[in-house]
Amino acid sequence: MSEVPGSNGDAPQYPITSRNKVKRKRERARYDVETVHELLDSALFCHLAYVIEGQPYCTPTLFWRRGNNVIWHGSVGSKMLNAQAKHIDVCLTVSFLDSIVLTRGAFHLAVNYRSAMVFGRATVIEDPEERRQEAEELIENFLPGRSALAIPPTPGEMKQVIFLKMPIDQAVAKIRNHPASYEVPENRNHPLWAGEIPIETRIGGATPCSTLDPGVPKSPDLDHYREGARLDSTLLQIRRRAGRDKY
Amino acid sequence: MSEVPGSNGDAPQYPITSRNKVKRKRERARYDVETVHELLDSALFCHLAYVIEGQPYCTPTLFWRRGNNVIWHGSVGSKMLNAQAKHIDVCLTVSFLDSIVLTRGAFHLAVNYRSAMVFGRATVIEDPEERRQEAEELIENFLPGRSALAIPPTPGEMKQVIFLKMPIDQAVAKIRNHPASYEVPENRNHPLWAGEIPIETRIGGATPCSTLDPGVPKSPDLDHYREGARLDSTLLQIRRRAGRDKY
Repeated sequence: MSEVPGSNGDAPQYPITSRNKVKRKRERARYDVETVHELLDSALFCHLAYVIEGQPYCTPTLFWRRGNNVIWHGSVGSKMLNAQAKHIDVCLTVSFLDSIVLTRGAFHLAVNYRSAMVFGRATVIEDPEERRQEAEELIENFLPGRSALAIPPTPGEMKQVIFLKMPIDQAVAKIRNHPASYEVPENRNHPLWAGEIPIETRIGGATPCSTLDPGVPKSPDLDHYREGARLDSTLLQIRRRAGRDKY
Repeated sequence: MSEVPGSNGDAPQYPITSRNKVKRKRERARYDVETVHELLDSALFCHLAYVIEGQPYCTPTLFWRRGNNVIWHGSVGSKMLNAQAKHIDVCLTVSFLDSIVLTRGAFHLAVNYRSAMVFGRATVIEDPEERRQEAEELIENFLPGRSALAIPPTPGEMKQVIFLKMPIDQAVAKIRNHPASYEVPENRNHPLWAGEIPIETRIGGATPCSTLDPGVPKSPDLDHYREGARLDSTLLQIRRRAGRDKY
């Protein structure tokens, strides 16, 4: 685990500079490592911002966290990965939409959300043993136990993938969780329904592949994915059990 | 509506250059306007990639589409909006995670998803009448009928917001929708459960604000948000009814 580069008071914090400092709505900002890691661990994929030849791109990608690193992977032919491998600045963001907040005043209409933005520069993992571990981790990070049961990647397949690892230099989490009544009190007499519409990303029922032999039982990794459960809390639970900070 | 800058054959297409051309897994790429607009209209928020002083940022933001423009808004004090107002390159991405695809081969493990990435440069909407329309649209784009019922923004509130409008210069949609059997056929004899775990973002039951007078009925905009319905198809339906291309 690369060291978290700053602390403030009791809880370890990421250092604050003009890059990650929230200037408006400061009450929504958190810089503590625990909050940032919890949000990262609640997500299966992120959006990456990076620049190629002056052009910013925003690409959704699967990723996982271990200690103070975020790791993602892809094809050796990927334009994104080859650019990021050159140690360019990357901003990795996860976000969760929690509710639509219907206020009486048009100006106060909002959504409640949680997001984390982490900053750093990635390097290619070159060490063969570390690459082998990440090829397992790519599965284990959300399907614990499956990598031992699946057909392992062949040496030829391993040659087709790059793993990038990025120590988190700086980070900021933003959380908005206000009821509709957060708007100006004068609005309360206006006779319009006010409240919240919750939005939740949930797990559906596992559907077997058409080519699956009906004699093959569900594998233990599926036990974590209870039909109707929230994806964010399911992932967080899986990752807390695995102890993502012990690596 | 700004004109869509290219077409190819029957269906209008966005022009393809090195910026938006998908080189790997080309079968996943779509450049037609209809697919890109459908994905944009299925989303409530996007992630924006942009650069300030050489640093890329990835920020989740509410947005809406009208014709060939995407529009977003925020505070006059927003560092992001003030930078984007200077006509810098922006990449706006929406993404939908549809399922986790559990294959027998570790190398083939994947997710099914839909995403759209659009490129352009934004300008600040200055015209007062257009600003007034966007202040309505900010609500109407997903809560039809509500702007006429809500307390309108005061002149003072209107002074606090900037609206940015970005004509879509280029775009690319990427859609992966393969069953687990898409992996190499040799894997089929391996006795491990294979299939899909669907992931769906759904609407919960509307919860009234604690300060709501129980005599105030639900407003008609809530009728669109059926408890248990998918958010993406609900938004698409709302926007299709409103005719997002008529503006």
